[in-house]
Amino acid sequence: MTKKVAVILCGSGYKDGSEIRESVFTLLALNQLNAHVECFAPDDWQKDVVNCLNGKNMEEKRNMLVEAARIARGKIKDIKELKAKNFDALMIPGGFGAAKNLCTFAFEGSAGSVRSDVSGVIRSFYQEKLPIGAVCIAPVIVAMTLKNENLLLTLGDEGEAAQEIVKLGHRHQQCLSSDCVVDKEHRVVTSPAYMDDGASMAEIFQGISKAVREVLSF
Amino acid sequence: MTKKVAVILCGSGYKDGSEIRESVFTLLALNQLNAHVECFAPDDWQKDVVNCLNGKNMEEKRNMLVEAARIARGKIKDIKELKAKNFDALMIPGGFGAAKNLCTFAFEGSAGSVRSDVSGVIRSFYQEKLPIGAVCIAPVIVAMTLKNENLLLTLGDEGEAAQEIVKLGHRHQQCLSSDCVVDKEHRVVTSPAYMDDGASMAEIFQGISKAVREVLSF
Repeated sequence: MTKKVAVILCGSGYKDGSEIRESVFTLLALNQLNAHVECFAPDDWQKDVVNCLNGKNMEEKRNMLVEAARIARGKIKDIKELKAKNFDALMIPGGFGAAKNLCTFAFEGSAGSVRSDVSGVIRSFYQEKLPIGAVCIAPVIVAMTLKNENLLLTLGDEGEAAQEIVKLGHRHQQCLSSDCVVDKEHRVVTSPAYMDDGASMAEIFQGISKAVREVLSF
Repeated sequence: MTKKVAVILCGSGYKDGSEIRESVFTLLALNQLNAHVECFAPDDWQKDVVNCLNGKNMEEKRNMLVEAARIARGKIKDIKELKAKNFDALMIPGGFGAAKNLCTFAFEGSAGSVRSDVSGVIRSFYQEKLPIGAVCIAPVIVAMTLKNENLLLTLGDEGEAAQEIVKLGHRHQQCLSSDCVVDKEHRVVTSPAYMDDGASMAEIFQGISKAVREVLSF
């Protein structure tokens, strides 16, 4: 049976939007396993626009939905239209945008907040016991939304970000970018991807593919 | 032995730059086969900026090198620094940018011209008998640069674009997006990718992977 999976994006680019490679790997892995995919993003401004060549902020405004359409090849909808009841699973790729646009983790750590449209979607998938996959830094969005649910998550190494996960009432497990962590009880799957900047594309694709396979197996 | 491959990008997005998925698939396939990759793009304005959600032109200017850095995660150089003698092969992903930014094929067909920095690079790889891979619409750039060389190329179906290839003094071979065409004599490998808009991501990745394997096998 074909599984229907919603993917949340938030721009297109590793410094200010959804990480492009992680997003494409997620979509490719889902397609390779015959999932039916629909992409969604908030129809709102990115937190910032960063020149990904020199890392400096640009005096521009870009819209998360419009930019994410670059990755989605135009086939993407406003996150307001995303209803858990129409899907079997949710996937959230990472990138700085996940920590800056979808929530304020990049600025406030575990004290930050998640956009209400995004937290609403995560909560509804969780309540319906539908699996949620999150890549790279995106697990922090799940951790902030589902505070104190004692989820088992990974952000790769046991660094500062991992400590914030624990502060939010969850458990952190170290993991390579070529692998993923499965919380069977809560149906949450996470893979570190570019949390390890030194990981190869092949390793990251392997990790995301494993995560996608686990998400689809629930 | 690790092969060194140069990849030419020209922005980031399917309506106005390098097609994101084709670019990522090319980089992933190269990495999976242990190639050492360097990305390059012209440090110049894109021909246009297109809202990939509604297809309309945007009143903005974006730089090919700066935007391509989103795909390359900042690791990209000005195409002026690309010297064939430092590499074993060249790969060019497709997308509208390939036909609008790197050459004028989108507006003038076979009567158009190729940016001199890009045609210079292609000519030098060709003269050094180094393999060249081109994806989607990008074979037209090779066809325009190497006019009347009787290359065997594919743009997928036998459509209008394919006829322009023949006008330029080459041969066109029909091909599925899950496959590639190899011109052994001239060391040029092409794969249609999103020339078939209905092809799946898995099929396109398969075709690009085959093309990359052939390029590395010379």
